[in-house]
Amino acid sequence: MKYRLYYWPEIQGRGEFVRLALEYAGADYRDVLRHAGDFSFPRKNAPFALPYLVAGKRIVAQTANILLFLGPRLRLAPRDEARRLWAHQLQLTIADWLAEVHDTHHPIGSGLYYEAQRPEAKRRSADFLAHRLPKFLDYFDRVLAASGGPYLLGRRLTYPDLSLFQMVTGLRYAFPRAMARIERRYPQVVALHARVAADPRLTPYLRSKRRIAFNRQGIFRAYPELDRERNSSKKT
Amino acid sequence: MKYRLYYWPEIQGRGEFVRLALEYAGADYRDVLRHAGDFSFPRKNAPFALPYLVAGKRIVAQTANILLFLGPRLRLAPRDEARRLWAHQLQLTIADWLAEVHDTHHPIGSGLYYEAQRPEAKRRSADFLAHRLPKFLDYFDRVLAASGGPYLLGRRLTYPDLSLFQMVTGLRYAFPRAMARIERRYPQVVALHARVAADPRLTPYLRSKRRIAFNRQGIFRAYPELDRERNSSKKT
Repeated sequence: MKYRLYYWPEIQGRGEFVRLALEYAGADYRDVLRHAGDFSFPRKNAPFALPYLVAGKRIVAQTANILLFLGPRLRLAPRDEARRLWAHQLQLTIADWLAEVHDTHHPIGSGLYYEAQRPEAKRRSADFLAHRLPKFLDYFDRVLAASGGPYLLGRRLTYPDLSLFQMVTGLRYAFPRAMARIERRYPQVVALHARVAADPRLTPYLRSKRRIAFNRQGIFRAYPELDRERNSSKKT
Repeated sequence: MKYRLYYWPEIQGRGEFVRLALEYAGADYRDVLRHAGDFSFPRKNAPFALPYLVAGKRIVAQTANILLFLGPRLRLAPRDEARRLWAHQLQLTIADWLAEVHDTHHPIGSGLYYEAQRPEAKRRSADFLAHRLPKFLDYFDRVLAASGGPYLLGRRLTYPDLSLFQMVTGLRYAFPRAMARIERRYPQVVALHARVAADPRLTPYLRSKRRIAFNRQGIFRAYPELDRERNSSKKT
């Protein structure tokens, strides 16, 4: 087993961004905690949180850092340093975006239940849907347009493409009404999502039981009250 | 001019983590927007947000990515890939921590004034001070203990040490009562902060006008109502 991934076995979460890269590349890996429930953080290079990846003696954590490590090894990253950092930069922007999605349902504290912060979640979600979601979608639409397409870095798929696919998939699950309303404004992003979703290197995984279903423990959560048609958040 | 940094000229913010590395290394750089107010994002490799760095033809954005790029060039990163990714992993954890600090005063929306989200900010700050702040401090204290010290990666200072220094400095400014109450539990972090603060490679900058003072536009903000002695946030 070349790679061992440690992540919560019940959710897609941050680990899914790593799983997608491993699966797309056909890598020899084990999703450890789906087979054995217990874990303890390694003492050397101790991660702050899951996910982390073990490869031989290497231990790598932080999702974007894991992908920075895996990218060249899975042939999902460009060869030269400048383009490799550009791919990583896009991944870090996706990480920021994902953190904002998480906070739509947990704006007060990640250790509190959603039900204990619902009013705040409604307010934050309205702001997210009105201001932040369009800003991120527009940004990636422009990056795709500027790259010449069809992928974020041009003609070849790299790992941030898989992550952008995951963002669109998750956002459609969590905010179906908002996405139906606005996603047509971002045709490059929609086309990238469709292309990745139909990629024969990925479809077997997406149809398999290895792909955990979205649910209300994950980062993308479908709470209809957070997916409002119109919002009352005022921009200052 | 070897490096040109683009960041908001009125605040320390995320740009400060880059400024500290450039200043510590004595790099030939210009803090562009402090001299000329206007900017437009480059079209090629367009950043999502400030800060970004220009070095010759290279354009690099995302604070942690800028430091990944600068680290070896400023001799503030380890030589081998494994330790370089470990330094980056620590930096990404600091980035997560910093985002949580920002959200203590902006839990609902970054485009809204603080005054428009004060009740939510009080709740989020209480949760941050009770649960998240101790968790991050404890993590870095343990990393320092495990490294053999005095720095995060051992005997040589690397760029995440400068960033950890900045976190402690900012947290003491924003949450003086909370920090006074708990920081003694994290002696390694306190010692690292004191060592960096007294480093002759950094003190000229810290005493200069180039070091922007903390204020209520930045990420670290001193709102006494958010720095409560005790908090009522319940952990579920």
